[in-house]
Amino acid sequence: MNYGSIRYIIGWILRIEGILMALPILTAVIYKEASGIAFGITAILCLVIGTLFSAKKPKKANYYAKEGYISVALGWLVLSIMGCLPFVISGEIPSFVDALFEIASGFTTTGASILSDVEALSKCMLIWRSFTHWVGGMGVLVFILAVLPLAGGEHNLQLMKAESPGPSVSKLVPKLRETAIMLYKIYLGMTIILIVLYLIGGMPLFDTLCMAFGTAGTGGFGIWNDSMGSYSVFLQAVTTVGMMLFGVNFSFYFLILYRKVKDAFSMEEVRWYFIIYFGAVILITWNLGSEAGSLLERFHHAAFQAASVMTTTGYSTVDFDLWMPFAKGIMLLLMFIGACAGSTGGGIKVSRILVYFKAVKNEMAALIHPRSVKVVKLEGKVIDSSVTKSVFAYISAYLIIFVISVLIISLDGFDFETNFSAVTATFNNIGPGFSAVGPTCNFSGYSIFSKIVLTLDMLIGRLEIFPILLLFAPSTWKK
Amino acid sequence: MNYGSIRYIIGWILRIEGILMALPILTAVIYKEASGIAFGITAILCLVIGTLFSAKKPKKANYYAKEGYISVALGWLVLSIMGCLPFVISGEIPSFVDALFEIASGFTTTGASILSDVEALSKCMLIWRSFTHWVGGMGVLVFILAVLPLAGGEHNLQLMKAESPGPSVSKLVPKLRETAIMLYKIYLGMTIILIVLYLIGGMPLFDTLCMAFGTAGTGGFGIWNDSMGSYSVFLQAVTTVGMMLFGVNFSFYFLILYRKVKDAFSMEEVRWYFIIYFGAVILITWNLGSEAGSLLERFHHAAFQAASVMTTTGYSTVDFDLWMPFAKGIMLLLMFIGACAGSTGGGIKVSRILVYFKAVKNEMAALIHPRSVKVVKLEGKVIDSSVTKSVFAYISAYLIIFVISVLIISLDGFDFETNFSAVTATFNNIGPGFSAVGPTCNFSGYSIFSKIVLTLDMLIGRLEIFPILLLFAPSTWKK
Repeated sequence: MNYGSIRYIIGWILRIEGILMALPILTAVIYKEASGIAFGITAILCLVIGTLFSAKKPKKANYYAKEGYISVALGWLVLSIMGCLPFVISGEIPSFVDALFEIASGFTTTGASILSDVEALSKCMLIWRSFTHWVGGMGVLVFILAVLPLAGGEHNLQLMKAESPGPSVSKLVPKLRETAIMLYKIYLGMTIILIVLYLIGGMPLFDTLCMAFGTAGTGGFGIWNDSMGSYSVFLQAVTTVGMMLFGVNFSFYFLILYRKVKDAFSMEEVRWYFIIYFGAVILITWNLGSEAGSLLERFHHAAFQAASVMTTTGYSTVDFDLWMPFAKGIMLLLMFIGACAGSTGGGIKVSRILVYFKAVKNEMAALIHPRSVKVVKLEGKVIDSSVTKSVFAYISAYLIIFVISVLIISLDGFDFETNFSAVTATFNNIGPGFSAVGPTCNFSGYSIFSKIVLTLDMLIGRLEIFPILLLFAPSTWKK
Repeated sequence: MNYGSIRYIIGWILRIEGILMALPILTAVIYKEASGIAFGITAILCLVIGTLFSAKKPKKANYYAKEGYISVALGWLVLSIMGCLPFVISGEIPSFVDALFEIASGFTTTGASILSDVEALSKCMLIWRSFTHWVGGMGVLVFILAVLPLAGGEHNLQLMKAESPGPSVSKLVPKLRETAIMLYKIYLGMTIILIVLYLIGGMPLFDTLCMAFGTAGTGGFGIWNDSMGSYSVFLQAVTTVGMMLFGVNFSFYFLILYRKVKDAFSMEEVRWYFIIYFGAVILITWNLGSEAGSLLERFHHAAFQAASVMTTTGYSTVDFDLWMPFAKGIMLLLMFIGACAGSTGGGIKVSRILVYFKAVKNEMAALIHPRSVKVVKLEGKVIDSSVTKSVFAYISAYLIIFVISVLIISLDGFDFETNFSAVTATFNNIGPGFSAVGPTCNFSGYSIFSKIVLTLDMLIGRLEIFPILLLFAPSTWKK
C-alpha cells in the first residue's frame, strides 16, 4: 500500500473542504449569525491538518486500483467527519452521530435528515448542508483532478473510477484533466441556468442557491419543512426538468458540446432513462385517481415525484407515502433503478439495469440452446463478459448489504415498510422513504447504532460499494 | 418441438393423477361423504383423457432440454387444472380460480390457502389437499420415471432436471431409473416413520396421514384452523425434526444408504443448512423476549417456525406475524434461502446461496487483483463457471419475476408488507406470509387476477423458473 499517496490526497481533500467553508462563513457574515464561528474554527482545522498532510509530495509513484479505492473511501469519511463539526460546535445539532448522519447525507447527495424542524437551523448551516450536495454530486476528487496537477495519468484514472458513479468511466477526451474540467464547467453552467430560472420564478436569492445545489447534486435537502410543497407550480416544474437533466449521463452533454448531437441522442442509456421515467409517470398518474386532484395536477405531482426519486434527489411536493400501494410500488422500483451512470444521481443506474436484463435474457436463452453464443450489447458496442460479471457481482453485493442493513436496523422495532424503505432511501442516496421515514417524517427515531449503519449505507451507495468495503476489509491492511 | 413425446408424457401424468384419486375416494367411502363422487368423476376424466393421450408411443425419439422443460411445465399445469375439479364439482370451493390456487398450492408444496375455515371441508377434500403435497414434494415425473419404462436415458434426465429442485441433478447411481426408485423408497420410508411417531404421540390416524404428507412434502396445509397450534409439544417437536430432515438434500440419505457416512456428513450444503438454521433459531429465541414465554418455550416455537419457513413448509404453532420486527426479518430471510437442493423444500436453496456468496467474494477480489484467478468450490469440487453464471441468472430472473409480481398484486391495494410477503410465501412455496396474509389469515382477500399471478408464482417457484417461462415464451412455439 502506498501510504504516502493516500496521505497526500487526504491532505488536499481537507484543504479543499476548508476553502469550501468560505461560503457558509460568508453567509454568516451577511446574516450576522454567530454560528459562523463554528465554520471558522472547522475551516482553520481543515486547512492546518490538510497542509500538514499534503506538505510533502509522496515519494513512490506506484498507485493502483487499491490505492484509488482507499483514498476515495477515506477521503469521503474524512470529508464527512470534518464537515459535521460546525453542527456540533455551534450546538445546532448537538449529537455527533446525528450531525455525521446529516452531513454524510449531504455529501452523498442523499438528503435524508434527522431534523424534525429544518427551519430552526441558521442560514449558514442551511447553505452548508445544501452546498455539500453540490460538491458531492460531481465528486470532490474529480474537482481536485480538475484544479490540481497530481501525479501520473494511471493515478488519476483510478481515483476518478473509484469516485464516479456507474459501471464504466472512460476518458471522454484524451486528457483526463480536461475531462474533469469539462465536467465541472457543464455542471456549473447548468447550475447557473437553474438559479436564473428560479430567480425568474420569484424565488428569494438565498433559496435559489440552496435549492439549485440540491437539484444539481440530486441531493434533496429542503430548507422548508414541507420541502418544495409551498413553491409555485412553475418553480416545481422547473425543478422536475432540472432533476431529470442532472440525472442524464454527462457524456450526453459532452457529445452535444463536441457537436455530436446524433450520437448524443442515440445513447441507449439516456433513451431508456426517459422511457422508464415516462412509463412510471403515466402509471402513477393513472393509479392516483381523481381524489388526488385534476388530471393535470396528478400528472404534475407524478412527474415531480417520479423525477425526484428516480434521480435520487428526494424533494417532495406532496406526501407520496399516502399514495395508493401500486403508485408507491412504482416509486420504490424507481428508487432502485436510479439515474444514469455518469450523472450526479444514485441508485443502481439505468446502464447496469440494462446490462443486467440483457445478460439474464442471454443466460436463459443459453439454457435452451446451450451451443449458441450470444453477446450483450450496450450503446451498439459488445459488452465484455468481465463487465457483465462485474454488474452481476455489483448487484449481488448490493443485495447482500441491503439485506444485512435491513436486518440490523429492524432491531429498533420499526415496521417492515419503514426499515425496508429507510435502507432503500439511504443506500440509493434518495432521502425520504415510506411510513415512519416518509416525506413528512425524518430519521431521528432510529437508534445511534442504526444511524451509523444508515450513514455507512449512504457512503457505500454513493461510492458504489467497493471502496468502503475495501476500507473495512482486514486483507487490505495486511502487509 | 417433439409434440408426440410431450403428449405421451402428459397422458401418463393424467393417468397417474386419476389413480392417485383413489385415496380421496377411499376416504369418502369410509366417512360416507357425498363429495367423493366429485373425485370419481374427475378420476374417470383423467383416466380417459390420459389413456387417449398416451395410447400411441411417440414416433420420434429426439428429445432435448426444451421438450423436457415444456413437458414438465405443461404437466404441472394440467395436474393442477384437473386436480382442482373435485373442489369445483362438489361445490366445496365453488370458484375455479380459488380451487386452482388451492390445489396448485398443494402440488407445489406451498400450503397457501384461500379458505377462511378449513375445518368446513369434508375429509376426502382435506386428504386430497394434503396428498398433493406428498406427490408434489418428490415430483410426479420422478415417480413416472421410477415406475415406467419411458424412452432413452437422455430423455429421462431432462425430465428429472426440469422437475427436481436445485442447481444440479446428477445421476446418483449409474441408472437413472434406479435413482428415481431409491428416492421414492427413502421418501416413503421416512414418511412411514413420521406417521408412526405421530401415532405414538396420540394423533388420530386421519390426522397423521394429512400432517405427514404436509411435513414430508414440506407443503404445510393444515386440517385445523390453527394449523399445528393445538397439537401437543411432542407432536410439534416431532414435526420440527421431520421438516428439517425432509429439507436435507436427499443425496445425504443416498450416501448413508450406500455406507458412505463420512461423505454424507461432510456435505457442505447440509452443513450450512444446519448452521443457518441454528443461527436463526438462536437469534429469534434471543429477540423474542420474555413476554413470549419461558426460554424453553421460546426456543421450541423459534425452532418450529424457523424450520417451517426455512424448509418452506408453512405450518405454524404461533402467530409469528406478531413477533418483533427483527425476528420477522430473520424469518423473511429464511423464506428466501429455503432448503437444500435435491430435497422436497423450496426457496432459492442453500447450495445456490453458497455458490452465490462465493462467486460474489471472488468477483470482488478480482476487482483488486485483476490478474489473480480464483475458482469457486462447492463440496470440495471446482464449480464450473457455467454453473456460477446460471446461478447468477437464476437469482436475477428470480428477482425480476419477484418485483413484477409484487407490483401487479399491489394494484389490489393491500399494504407493502402484505404484498411483499404474499409473493415471498408463494414464490418460495412456503404458505403464510405476514400482515394480511399472516399465519392466522389467508389469501382470499386478493382479486381473481392477483390469485392467478400468485398461482403462477407458485408453479414458477416450484419448477424453478425456466420451465414455466419457456412455456409462455413466444419463441418456444415458433416453427
